[in-house]
Amino acid sequence: MDFSKTFNDYKEKVEAYLEEISSFELPNPCYFSKLQDSVKYSLLAGGKRLRPVILLAACEMAGGNTEDALPFAAAMEMIHTASLIHDDLPAMDDDDLRRGRKTNHKVYGEATALLAGDTLFVYPFEIMAKATKTENQAKAMQIIAYNTGVMGMMGGQQVDLSYEGKPVTEEIIVQLNRLKTGALFRAAVCAGLSLAGASQKELEAGEKYGEYLGLAFQLVDDLLDDDPDADTGKTKGSDISQNKSTYLSVYGKEKCLEMIHTCTKNAEKILTDTFLEKAEFLITLTNQLETRKS
Amino acid sequence: MDFSKTFNDYKEKVEAYLEEISSFELPNPCYFSKLQDSVKYSLLAGGKRLRPVILLAACEMAGGNTEDALPFAAAMEMIHTASLIHDDLPAMDDDDLRRGRKTNHKVYGEATALLAGDTLFVYPFEIMAKATKTENQAKAMQIIAYNTGVMGMMGGQQVDLSYEGKPVTEEIIVQLNRLKTGALFRAAVCAGLSLAGASQKELEAGEKYGEYLGLAFQLVDDLLDDDPDADTGKTKGSDISQNKSTYLSVYGKEKCLEMIHTCTKNAEKILTDTFLEKAEFLITLTNQLETRKS
Repeated sequence: MDFSKTFNDYKEKVEAYLEEISSFELPNPCYFSKLQDSVKYSLLAGGKRLRPVILLAACEMAGGNTEDALPFAAAMEMIHTASLIHDDLPAMDDDDLRRGRKTNHKVYGEATALLAGDTLFVYPFEIMAKATKTENQAKAMQIIAYNTGVMGMMGGQQVDLSYEGKPVTEEIIVQLNRLKTGALFRAAVCAGLSLAGASQKELEAGEKYGEYLGLAFQLVDDLLDDDPDADTGKTKGSDISQNKSTYLSVYGKEKCLEMIHTCTKNAEKILTDTFLEKAEFLITLTNQLETRKS
Repeated sequence: MDFSKTFNDYKEKVEAYLEEISSFELPNPCYFSKLQDSVKYSLLAGGKRLRPVILLAACEMAGGNTEDALPFAAAMEMIHTASLIHDDLPAMDDDDLRRGRKTNHKVYGEATALLAGDTLFVYPFEIMAKATKTENQAKAMQIIAYNTGVMGMMGGQQVDLSYEGKPVTEEIIVQLNRLKTGALFRAAVCAGLSLAGASQKELEAGEKYGEYLGLAFQLVDDLLDDDPDADTGKTKGSDISQNKSTYLSVYGKEKCLEMIHTCTKNAEKILTDTFLEKAEFLITLTNQLETRKS
């Protein structure tokens, strides 16, 4: 398997699909086209497209069809983008840069950015509902919604808000990241598996794999935020300047590096034990994320 | 049929269901319980529960089961509440009062109110996806999502933003309200009908009925906002003080009253022609909305 080629194939499919579904025809005359512009500005701004790629790869790993999975993969990216737009608002992190460009509200104003985020939380469910013919598809949608909500990403953002600038325990930082970052990784893996009709045993393995993957991803993110040479496309050191508690501030760099390595190895073992040679792509992806620089 | 009793039966079912689904168990320890509090504060704050009642009534009118429709009815109220929370934020209307109480962000702060709105846009899709076993249910979910998004309520909010304080044409004000208010009424009617497995002819009639109902509702709303004796639970005259264009400012009071009456009669005729005596509840509801004072 050529990892880079497979990754880019997945990514290009997602990009083309995102372009297609965000370019729907507006009424004529239309007095709200600014909202579509604002949605497209953030959704089509590049980015690693990691969550949709993981969903497609997990679906294929369990024997599913990636064409049918595209609406669900695109949903992961829309929801991720929605959370970034809202996270960047003045009421939240008040960030000026994202993916190397001005944040949405810096270009379209706060009110339209708020609506663009709202749109990107709801439109994915229109796309997925339209594609839903089977209980496995309904289940994938449920997994994605659950991990986006209070018991997932949004709950994690609330932990972040509630403890900003306050001393935190290890327990708090673990809950924060398990939800804020981890939930969407678990959702991508499990929704992808569910679409392929995976067994309960496979779903449980996917959940554990997503857990390690999300943890490793966030640990690397925290190190990169503190690394002057890293190219994150975000305002540098913004976590530190906002007094955000990160794994780095709680554990220190050495422990973080050790944890990243352990998580990666654990993630790899779970995949190999359950999916054997079909896990090759996701194993390589997991290892590459360990050493990423952006 | 005892209209008030039937209305209250629907409403109580919805209220009990909303209470149940918003009181889910949190992990222990939980560092994000404030978000659940904030969601419950706005969702369980009363209100007319008009959209879920209409969904249940439309479902029953077409021969459907209202118990199975509850997740979809509750979704209408969650989405409506989400839009109110975000509409009240400083970046949008900056309102202090809603349903006679402090607005969400005045109690929980802007960032948590933002997340509470986000939650109430996504949680309904978790609840609906969990309940979805048939294509009619997936279709109802799609109808609700479509009418919430850019081509529905959110598009309407963008028209509102883009023309705030500017002179507007009749065409603009019609598009604004058709989307901002009308879309959720059309969604409630059509999703309810879809859940009951209604025919294409019935769905088209429902769409037209929802159109007239939403228009009449907004016309009455605009008159009430300007009426010092009305009990709207909102800051009085806030549309006028924010230089918002309303039907009242475009048409004047007399024309508005005439339009309300015509819409109500048209709505009644469509229902009677299509659903005969089964339309009794929604016809009475439509007529009562014409003369509401709150």
